Amino acid sequence: MTTLQDCQALDAQDPLRPLRDLFTLPPGMIYLDGNSLGAAPRAAAERAATVVQQEWSQGLITSWNAAGWVDLPQRLGNQFAPWIGAGADEVVFTDTTSINLFKVLTAAARLAREDAPQRKKLISERSNFPTDLYIAQSVCAEYGLELVLLEPEEIAAALTPEVAICMLTHVNYRTGAMHDMAAVTAAAHAQGILCVWDLCHSAGAVPVDLKGANADYAVGCSYKYLNGGPGAPAFVWVHPRHADRFWQPLSGWFGHSAPFAFTPGYEPAAGIRRYLCGTQPIVSLSLLQCGLDTYEAARPLGGMAALRTKSLTLTDLFIRLVEERCAGHGLGLATPRDHAARGSQVCLTRDEGAYAIVQALIARGVVGDYRAGSGAAPAAGKGDGGTAHKDILRFGFTPLYIGFEDVWNAVEQLRQVLESGEWRRPEFNQINAVT
Amino acid sequence: MTTLQDCQALDAQDPLRPLRDLFTLPPGMIYLDGNSLGAAPRAAAERAATVVQQEWSQGLITSWNAAGWVDLPQRLGNQFAPWIGAGADEVVFTDTTSINLFKVLTAAARLAREDAPQRKKLISERSNFPTDLYIAQSVCAEYGLELVLLEPEEIAAALTPEVAICMLTHVNYRTGAMHDMAAVTAAAHAQGILCVWDLCHSAGAVPVDLKGANADYAVGCSYKYLNGGPGAPAFVWVHPRHADRFWQPLSGWFGHSAPFAFTPGYEPAAGIRRYLCGTQPIVSLSLLQCGLDTYEAARPLGGMAALRTKSLTLTDLFIRLVEERCAGHGLGLATPRDHAARGSQVCLTRDEGAYAIVQALIARGVVGDYRAGSGAAPAAGKGDGGTAHKDILRFGFTPLYIGFEDVWNAVEQLRQVLESGEWRRPEFNQINAVT
Repeated sequence: MTTLQDCQALDAQDPLRPLRDLFTLPPGMIYLDGNSLGAAPRAAAERAATVVQQEWSQGLITSWNAAGWVDLPQRLGNQFAPWIGAGADEVVFTDTTSINLFKVLTAAARLAREDAPQRKKLISERSNFPTDLYIAQSVCAEYGLELVLLEPEEIAAALTPEVAICMLTHVNYRTGAMHDMAAVTAAAHAQGILCVWDLCHSAGAVPVDLKGANADYAVGCSYKYLNGGPGAPAFVWVHPRHADRFWQPLSGWFGHSAPFAFTPGYEPAAGIRRYLCGTQPIVSLSLLQCGLDTYEAARPLGGMAALRTKSLTLTDLFIRLVEERCAGHGLGLATPRDHAARGSQVCLTRDEGAYAIVQALIARGVVGDYRAGSGAAPAAGKGDGGTAHKDILRFGFTPLYIGFEDVWNAVEQLRQVLESGEWRRPEFNQINAVT
Repeated sequence: MTTLQDCQALDAQDPLRPLRDLFTLPPGMIYLDGNSLGAAPRAAAERAATVVQQEWSQGLITSWNAAGWVDLPQRLGNQFAPWIGAGADEVVFTDTTSINLFKVLTAAARLAREDAPQRKKLISERSNFPTDLYIAQSVCAEYGLELVLLEPEEIAAALTPEVAICMLTHVNYRTGAMHDMAAVTAAAHAQGILCVWDLCHSAGAVPVDLKGANADYAVGCSYKYLNGGPGAPAFVWVHPRHADRFWQPLSGWFGHSAPFAFTPGYEPAAGIRRYLCGTQPIVSLSLLQCGLDTYEAARPLGGMAALRTKSLTLTDLFIRLVEERCAGHGLGLATPRDHAARGSQVCLTRDEGAYAIVQALIARGVVGDYRAGSGAAPAAGKGDGGTAHKDILRFGFTPLYIGFEDVWNAVEQLRQVLESGEWRRPEFNQINAVT
């Protein structure tokens, strides 16, 4: 049996342990929801004060140049690019994931219409994050494509010459299951299919090598593992082989080749800059830098390889402790045990009370979240590991600031919530909006 | 002749004078660029600290509900709606002006395609702000419309049954010339044409009555007269008669009727909420509230009527002082003298040195900005008052924080720059990016 002392020993040996001090976390809280909203870097408070009190209040309009606001989307993109296997001048932070997805899906749909008009399908995963499906639905309607939703295990066989675009989220938001990006992309390309990847739950959480996988387009948010702040602007990457082909329809002035020439006709900038559109929310964008800087601090301590090793050790430990210490309480595992197929979160299922158990844990200072199941049991062999219909208790493990003793304590609280039955209390059964 | 004492007397009588103390402005600076980036409200520093250090750092994921992040776009929209003649639940702050324009132009194009497919033109003004034209170009390409660019005096005659959409910016960014929104909208509607208004240079600057004018769609930014902060999210308004017809193509989860139900199919929310898309930049959005609050403070002092009276007195005074004290230096006036046709800025022309004069003024603490002319002289009777080809010195007058002695001092500095010829120095002739 694993002991508290084992966990403390893991913390003592953890080379990434000092990074925890880069974040502010409420005293006594174990925050396992960094996959929904990342914790605040300590540096964010001072950065906010500088941007508001100096750059805006004192610098005013001159700060567009003097404080470098004007190329912040590109500068942050260049700082972050190596963490997802992208090159210089290939990534920008701008707008939202939904809007960036609209840009790249439209670009891909136009490319497909030009190069392979007979391809009429856009395939994705039924349990993809809903906003991705909503945007795909819109683009399909405009470009005469059929949106085909599949279970993960059906995707390989669905990569046929009828398909124009395969749009997948690398790590599933519900289950934490991870696709093999290189293998899926290679299989898709073998059939002439373009691949669009949503990295919301993988950027900063797992190793990503977009160029190595030869992906076509990618988007992702910055407010989860990247700790950019609530609703911080998202990123977009386009493989250089596509970047100059077609301009996306959100053709605002920041994507113009000469935005300050104020010419009446749109001329898209070369490369990724044409995926910019309007003026960005500079305060939120500036705070994102603090989140990216915490990754820079991880670089000399082993970088993404060290983060991944710790992440897997954390999630392995959580699974093991739940199975050792919460046995007999009806919990199931929705997240793959296979390291190669796991992101940086662990999701548990329970036939009854998942929502209330999460609320009871939050009341005890262990913050995870809840995701409702579809309700309808899938046909045999279908569904995301058979869990799509089940309610889920979701726990994210950010190796930058979560430690091994945290995992012990979280499971101990979960055990007490289950053994005491306190989750049945009415106050834990009131539904709030959850993001 | 107008004297400094006259100006000081105007300040002494100004009921809005106390509002100046709601803003931080660099000591000694006369900031006449609030039509590009508004000044920072004093409250912004504390609000930024609260959002970052409490709501994000301590509240974390719970702040989506506990701090009201989740409906901030609607709440701010409702606070602001009366200032543009919109009703409750008709306005949201979200995304950027360019993106919101894409949403409403697409909605209008779809509406026109449905109701009047024979209409094949989208008309606008040649000297409209370029990003509006770029977005219109994109929407026209998608919907088979022809983008027709006109001089202001050609618009009335161009409102014909071939036109689907008339897209205008209420106050011209270069000249400060203002359209008669009610008259243009009535003339357009008489021909069955939908009217889209860009309020970037009029929201908070001049009286706007969207419902009174019976407009169809409107967008605008919040970082100019509304003092929302650099790149703060823009707003979008749709007349309730159109809001539920067609969903705009940026169909992200925040525009869904039940965003947190995580259903795979998109169902647009009723009303303006369907114009939301992705997760908003909460820190920037929160600071916008401080800007809107400065308008609330103006309400008991006379509200928009008092702001408009002061704005016209400021711009009249500036024009008069320039003509009295800078005569013989080759300055022309690009802004209409007619109050009904003037926004809250004054633009001067000069055949030579406009850029350098602006830089020399900035060095003296008088911050205006420069906009290049097209260079080519228009045909007789064409062009925006004959000034489209001319370089412009642009001065914005925000009645919330600009006083009458400021106007005196600004013109005095301009006089000295012109009389001394110091603008010819090389350091004032180096071009930077200007926004």
